[in-house]
Amino acid sequence: MEHAIAAAIESYHELNAAVVDELKEDPSPLEFMRYVARNRPFVVRRAAAEWDAVKKWDAVYLRQVMGNSPVNVAVTPLGNADAVVEQENGILIFVEPYERSEPFVDFLDYVQQEGEHSLSHERPRLVKYAQTQNDNLREEYQELFADVLKDIPFARIALEKEADAINMWIGNERSVTALHKDNYENIYIQVRGEKHFVLLSPMEMPCVNEQALCEAHYRPSKSHELRPHDELVIQCSTDELLPVPTWDPDNRDFRATRYSHLARPLRVTLKKGDMLYLPAMSVLRNPDI
Amino acid sequence: MEHAIAAAIESYHELNAAVVDELKEDPSPLEFMRYVARNRPFVVRRAAAEWDAVKKWDAVYLRQVMGNSPVNVAVTPLGNADAVVEQENGILIFVEPYERSEPFVDFLDYVQQEGEHSLSHERPRLVKYAQTQNDNLREEYQELFADVLKDIPFARIALEKEADAINMWIGNERSVTALHKDNYENIYIQVRGEKHFVLLSPMEMPCVNEQALCEAHYRPSKSHELRPHDELVIQCSTDELLPVPTWDPDNRDFRATRYSHLARPLRVTLKKGDMLYLPAMSVLRNPDI
Repeated sequence: MEHAIAAAIESYHELNAAVVDELKEDPSPLEFMRYVARNRPFVVRRAAAEWDAVKKWDAVYLRQVMGNSPVNVAVTPLGNADAVVEQENGILIFVEPYERSEPFVDFLDYVQQEGEHSLSHERPRLVKYAQTQNDNLREEYQELFADVLKDIPFARIALEKEADAINMWIGNERSVTALHKDNYENIYIQVRGEKHFVLLSPMEMPCVNEQALCEAHYRPSKSHELRPHDELVIQCSTDELLPVPTWDPDNRDFRATRYSHLARPLRVTLKKGDMLYLPAMSVLRNPDI
Repeated sequence: MEHAIAAAIESYHELNAAVVDELKEDPSPLEFMRYVARNRPFVVRRAAAEWDAVKKWDAVYLRQVMGNSPVNVAVTPLGNADAVVEQENGILIFVEPYERSEPFVDFLDYVQQEGEHSLSHERPRLVKYAQTQNDNLREEYQELFADVLKDIPFARIALEKEADAINMWIGNERSVTALHKDNYENIYIQVRGEKHFVLLSPMEMPCVNEQALCEAHYRPSKSHELRPHDELVIQCSTDELLPVPTWDPDNRDFRATRYSHLARPLRVTLKKGDMLYLPAMSVLRNPDI
């Protein structure tokens, strides 16, 4: 069994180069489906260059359109959204952010001010990230929805399905999403800034040391209005255990399985206007910039 | 880990009915690729009804075209080609047929005579099966190649690849192929008779109790010309171990793993002119009729 798993991972790497394909233009539905069938990501550089979002969205425009509309904000001590945290007793837990509603302009001010404050206090400044996945561009951010394509035709035709959700995420260079997988085919567009992706094939699941962890949330230690350098404490939410990868491809010897050394992560950095296809059940981690 | 594997198999079955889809006509390349992406088989009844092979091939025609041309014949005691055999010491081995060359007409006579002789002898009559997979329709059987389509266009376009091999297999109701998997996308056409397939999804690999077995071959116990009721003995070929499924979906409690009870095999019977898409890495077993 062990040998078979290692052989399958090695033979996968022999057949698949450890690079993300770059396409010159949007694929046809059939070309797209070939990537879906192989669980392989691809990038189309500047695919969304002509989208209104890519051409128009800057801080002035977003403030003007969104104003004081309330948005959901995820708050973490170190930018570690959905993270594996080792407690003092050595037990690993899966910690989700503290979530709260803030007026959009306040949130954007906070995210933009990063760097100015970071060294001035005993505790690092809390990190904020707008990262809901509940179709937020057709809900919280619906005033901005006019600026994006309603539809990715090659994906709709290939998968015979409209998008289940259209989401926008806003963060800064301190936000990091832990290694995780999603059961969705995902088309990601970089509107502003850059994002670094680290991707593993579903075949490399035995490398990531998935463990059943208790689910927890950060919450403020005091009940007053949250301040940038407040402490967040961890509160276990339920008795339910979640399967969570505990290995980090950038810290390969730590919490490694006997297969981790066989992993060959794909790395890609998206820039303004670039499109990335993220295959369902790929394992990915993405620090934002 | 155990729980995660069981949950993955169960959730696969919740999302995928335990039936083989039946299409009304050949799929387009894109429709085909959707099946490839999901590792799901499908049948197109009578898809090959107009092929010359389906219209013309009978024993008279085959004898006339092939005559005494030598063909490779697989010989087994019970029709168990590529089978798991338990030795007297309890050790399982993987036994491949005794292979020999015979004039085509002699082979066909033998296969057609099944039933007439089976009860008349202390040992069952040896089973013969023409089952090479070395592109035999463009080699041994090239005289017959004119009667089949050179190409399955939807598969060639979708996979961007010509067929690696085009094979014909001839056997009778006593031939059974053990549970196995192939790393090829396979389009199977039933030209004459019937064939029963039992298919498992790649997701159900933990159910099949794959074990590393010693590879062996049947060979005649005597060196004279092979006779129908001769004994075949087993000879271990090499020290190499092969990964082989040892569980049988029709004998579910025997050599079962902790996951075998979760398997929900797909069953389909092909008749004259029917087409079956067999996804790569599916696990299948196919008794012929």
